[in-house]
Amino acid sequence: MLSIKELQDRLASFASERDWDQFHSPKNLVMALSGEVGELVSIFQWMSEEESLCACKAGSKKKMIEEEVADVMIYLARFCDKASIDLDLAVSEKISLNEKKYPVEFARGSSKKYTENF
Amino acid sequence: MLSIKELQDRLASFASERDWDQFHSPKNLVMALSGEVGELVSIFQWMSEEESLCACKAGSKKKMIEEEVADVMIYLARFCDKASIDLDLAVSEKISLNEKKYPVEFARGSSKKYTENF
Amino acid sequence: MLSIKELQDRLASFASERDWDQFHSPKNLVMALSGEVGELVSIFQWMSEEESLCACKAGSKKKMIEEEVADVMIYLARFCDKASIDLDLAVSEKISLNEKKYPVEFARGSSKKYTENF
Amino acid sequence: MLSIKELQDRLASFASERDWDQFHSPKNLVMALSGEVGELVSIFQWMSEEESLCACKAGSKKKMIEEEVADVMIYLARFCDKASIDLDLAVSEKISLNEKKYPVEFARGSSKKYTENF
Repeated sequence: MLSIKELQDRLASFASERDWDQFHSPKNLVMALSGEVGELVSIFQWMSEEESLCACKAGSKKKMIEEEVADVMIYLARFCDKASIDLDLAVSEKISLNEKKYPVEFARGSSKKYTENF
Repeated sequence: MLSIKELQDRLASFASERDWDQFHSPKNLVMALSGEVGELVSIFQWMSEEESLCACKAGSKKKMIEEEVADVMIYLARFCDKASIDLDLAVSEKISLNEKKYPVEFARGSSKKYTENF
Repeated sequence: MLSIKELQDRLASFASERDWDQFHSPKNLVMALSGEVGELVSIFQWMSEEESLCACKAGSKKKMIEEEVADVMIYLARFCDKASIDLDLAVSEKISLNEKKYPVEFARGSSKKYTENF
Repeated sequence: MLSIKELQDRLASFASERDWDQFHSPKNLVMALSGEVGELVSIFQWMSEEESLCACKAGSKKKMIEEEVADVMIYLARFCDKASIDLDLAVSEKISLNEKKYPVEFARGSSKKYTENF
């Protein structure tokens, strides 16, 4: 169980040993992130919502899903490192923001509200 | 600094309080993840690589970038929770896999190799 | 009803009049395309498949969907123009390829086959 | 050189012969579109803008780019068919809208304006 910082250090060494740092501009890393998410989306594109739940739990797709999810996390962590963004802090602040934006009393049970705003 | 588990618990409460759990199938969450990454890509689309580095460090875009990055992390954590995927483990295994797939001696300094394989 | 060529000429004038040609590298245009598709995905993320069909036919989302779809087509056409790709020809060749790759007798009625291969 | 209508008819036959119509909800088709755009983005992720231009003109990547571009067009056309959206009309209306939104006199030569608004 690595912290974000430990993960980023490991990815930095990985890139540095291979002299790949030159490719890792924020622009390029965001494209790489987008490509990996595209692969994840492809896995689920023809599944019903129920099938998407089953596919994650067992069977031939589970491994593929785990690998794509890991790639997304890896590029997200690497992006934040190169972009000097504190991911933990950004997440905490965004959750606080969402709590103000979607107060329980208004959002509760309302799929319409949810669909419109979230 | 939340662990993945703590982040997921916080997001689970957030969804549950608003009765939004019904929308959070793996299929739907992967779409939400994809939408947020799309917003992040949009921010960088007309920037040069150098500009993308500057934009992350200071100025009017920095806040937007941090918010989009947080949204990506939030949906990724939520997806893994609903999909019963251990994100930390998946990342560790993927890094080990990448170390075998791109041995330093072959990958080093070769942008072509990198471009083709990674 | 514009041909691809006519659409591309109109978009080329639009960009040229605004001196925006300098931003339209294939790399950047592909990012713009990706951003627009992300917006389209967002519209549908919390809908069931049935709701996604209804939303396209009438109501408050229809206009949004049409605008995003148009943006996708616009950037796709612009990309092909700047990348010297004959979109009509590429599509014809891909359809022929798909006909060989998914022969009717094997693909018919098999969602599994479809899910795995397409 | 097919019209959109002719392309859609051809794709409709293709799907119908394989009994794949059942998978082609707007929601699913938008995911497929997103997946294909993700593949296109991946091709360009480590290229400079100049390299992205060269890659489209000749060499080993050109064929891959053409295939991905075709897939994007195919799913876009199929989506519009299933979603009852008139793609030609949507594009014409969006171009008119853009002409009002970005008047030549204000947008000209201003990368900042462009970056902010487009």
